[in-house]
Amino acid sequence: MEREGDMKIGTYAYDEFIEKVKEFHGSIAPGIVAGGVMVDIAKANLPEGEFFDVICESQHCLPDAVQLLTPCTIGNRWLKIAETSRYALTFYNKYTGEGIRVYLDAKKLGDWPAISAWFLKEKPKKEQSLDRILDEFCRARTAIYGTEKVTVKPSFIASPEKKHSAIGLCPCCGEAFRTSLGERCPACQGRGPYG
Amino acid sequence: MEREGDMKIGTYAYDEFIEKVKEFHGSIAPGIVAGGVMVDIAKANLPEGEFFDVICESQHCLPDAVQLLTPCTIGNRWLKIAETSRYALTFYNKYTGEGIRVYLDAKKLGDWPAISAWFLKEKPKKEQSLDRILDEFCRARTAIYGTEKVTVKPSFIASPEKKHSAIGLCPCCGEAFRTSLGERCPACQGRGPYG
Repeated sequence: MEREGDMKIGTYAYDEFIEKVKEFHGSIAPGIVAGGVMVDIAKANLPEGEFFDVICESQHCLPDAVQLLTPCTIGNRWLKIAETSRYALTFYNKYTGEGIRVYLDAKKLGDWPAISAWFLKEKPKKEQSLDRILDEFCRARTAIYGTEKVTVKPSFIASPEKKHSAIGLCPCCGEAFRTSLGERCPACQGRGPYG
Repeated sequence: MEREGDMKIGTYAYDEFIEKVKEFHGSIAPGIVAGGVMVDIAKANLPEGEFFDVICESQHCLPDAVQLLTPCTIGNRWLKIAETSRYALTFYNKYTGEGIRVYLDAKKLGDWPAISAWFLKEKPKKEQSLDRILDEFCRARTAIYGTEKVTVKPSFIASPEKKHSAIGLCPCCGEAFRTSLGERCPACQGRGPYG
């Protein structure tokens, strides 16, 4: 098995990364191994020493690879989710908006039947083999991904106004919220998560 | 300082939790200490042994407390963000949708000037003292939070259909996406993060 060899993900040896994934994510999801390689590709394509924010286009697994391998977390907001359902992440400069997008390229999966079956859901999960998928990911290395230069929308770019928005109490629920969002908080505008 | 005493957050001693926060979140944010106490309150109010999913109503800090103290992460999707800008989290049963919501209650901050100044942004950040805020959080313990029973909207409840949505290639960008989202992927419908 190639993956027992010299493969590294970030600064981790492969097996060490797998342990970290189990501990944080709760299980060894193939998507996080893919995500780990994608993070490395993105970093390798960034200007050296540059600070970056990250966008994940899917909430499935990918964000946990980013949280394990970079300083960006969802709670420090250097990591953002912009759900398009595509398996892609973007590392970008939060002042200029310029960045590098890395995606798992379905057109490059011809030689990798186990990855293809997993990624495109060609077979029910119970007919798939985690070992075979991981083995293919390790052998495929960076060959199954694509990259492109992108510029993110202004809403993802840092601005002083965002930082200094005032806090007030919602006249409806009485809780604190950013008053730039309206006269009432978004929940009392009908956009809360409760029925 | 009370916080050097016997305070625990989750299974961590206070200082140990602060170390974990530094390592994962990158800095000691008061919001994560609050979040840690909120996680403990939510757990204490759940039926014992029950599995739960979590919603954070703010992406500021709170999700990192959840990721440090529970098995729920953004990438395993047991943690979800439903941004209302309120400082609240909900632990809920993903099959019934019933849960407990915990929020930082602005009306209970009368005795806690440093927390109040931080939470309601009453003073510029540089005029605030992190030590004083943390000291007040430790002394306030659970006294500044509120709880309520809630039922989450159906979109947060587990359903077999969601799990089995088919994957296809977008005719526009060629990338894989969940075809239940439309004929093209959400990015090619104009809802992507790029300009």
